[in-house]
Amino acid sequence: MKPEVTHKLRSDASDNRARILAVARLAFATEGLDVPIREIARRSEVGPATVYRHFPTKEALFTAAFAEQMTVCSAVVEEGLAAADPWRGLCLVIERLLEMHALDRGFSRAFTSQFPRTIEHFTADRDRTLRMLHELVRRAKESGDLRPDIVLEDIVLALMANEGIRAEAADLRVAASRRFAALIIQSFRAAPSPTPLPPAVRLPLTVR
Amino acid sequence: MKPEVTHKLRSDASDNRARILAVARLAFATEGLDVPIREIARRSEVGPATVYRHFPTKEALFTAAFAEQMTVCSAVVEEGLAAADPWRGLCLVIERLLEMHALDRGFSRAFTSQFPRTIEHFTADRDRTLRMLHELVRRAKESGDLRPDIVLEDIVLALMANEGIRAEAADLRVAASRRFAALIIQSFRAAPSPTPLPPAVRLPLTVR
Repeated sequence: MKPEVTHKLRSDASDNRARILAVARLAFATEGLDVPIREIARRSEVGPATVYRHFPTKEALFTAAFAEQMTVCSAVVEEGLAAADPWRGLCLVIERLLEMHALDRGFSRAFTSQFPRTIEHFTADRDRTLRMLHELVRRAKESGDLRPDIVLEDIVLALMANEGIRAEAADLRVAASRRFAALIIQSFRAAPSPTPLPPAVRLPLTVR
Repeated sequence: MKPEVTHKLRSDASDNRARILAVARLAFATEGLDVPIREIARRSEVGPATVYRHFPTKEALFTAAFAEQMTVCSAVVEEGLAAADPWRGLCLVIERLLEMHALDRGFSRAFTSQFPRTIEHFTADRDRTLRMLHELVRRAKESGDLRPDIVLEDIVLALMANEGIRAEAADLRVAASRRFAALIIQSFRAAPSPTPLPPAVRLPLTVR
């Protein structure tokens, strides 16, 4: 094969991979993780075999699709852990993670889902993040600011709950998640605080 | 037509209606409100035209499907409003509604969705329930037990968030919703309380 032909083939493969990832991210974020591989292939304008060649399983596809968000997520928790005041660090993590999850529900869903052990990279990264978060919870308790009966599982619960907040407009979802994060932080406090909450959000269904 | 033939026809129609409602409740509760009418018809073993004859729109179908739960939901809020202590009444309502919604996510989804004004019965009943809840919030604030900056919308937010809590087993979902309700109540308190929270729930994804 001539060099330029090999180059062309490689470049096509790389274009395909990037396009499949972009389509998968959008599909997972807006429709959840149930979108079939053949639908991802159709929207990427490639055959299913091409998707499978790059990503042998659906899990491999979304591990790759969410690699970047996972890195951001880990960095947020690392930053919280590095804060001089562990309670402030924990509040920052809750606020940022809930906002991040409100903006990208595909990642949120992936982060709070149970997968077979085969999805090594994704679950290993997540487990590492959760272990750091566990340490932050321990320190915030030790400082006396976090209620002693709050556990790591309560943060996972808050992340899942955050996924339930529905609104068509992303800015409304973010505002509602901010209010929700403030409520969760309030419930976690060992002692009450007069800190005002962010504005309440009027979701479409409510009557006056 | 002979009387027994008319009777037979009426009885078939009534059987069909009951079967369609049972199928719709199950479908909406386990798969959400996006299940197509023709799928409901298929599972009910009738033609789509039969479903449409009983329920001209999908909204009419789920108004009928959820009529009973809506009555229970209203009764819970009425009971809360009748309590001598409005804060206790409000806590009761939050606990019972979140548990109810954890058991039947179809109703929960319907309750927190925006519908066109044509769905008169469903939205009228819901608006009536929300108005009672609004009055309960006002009284609990007046008693000094509820934070002054909590509004009706925060309860709607909690209901939606509750829908995000996923677990295959219904008992795990209920336990997680109980913990969540306790956290929400904690965040609503004007003054902190040493009341212990219900047990934390370990959701499947968490690492140790």
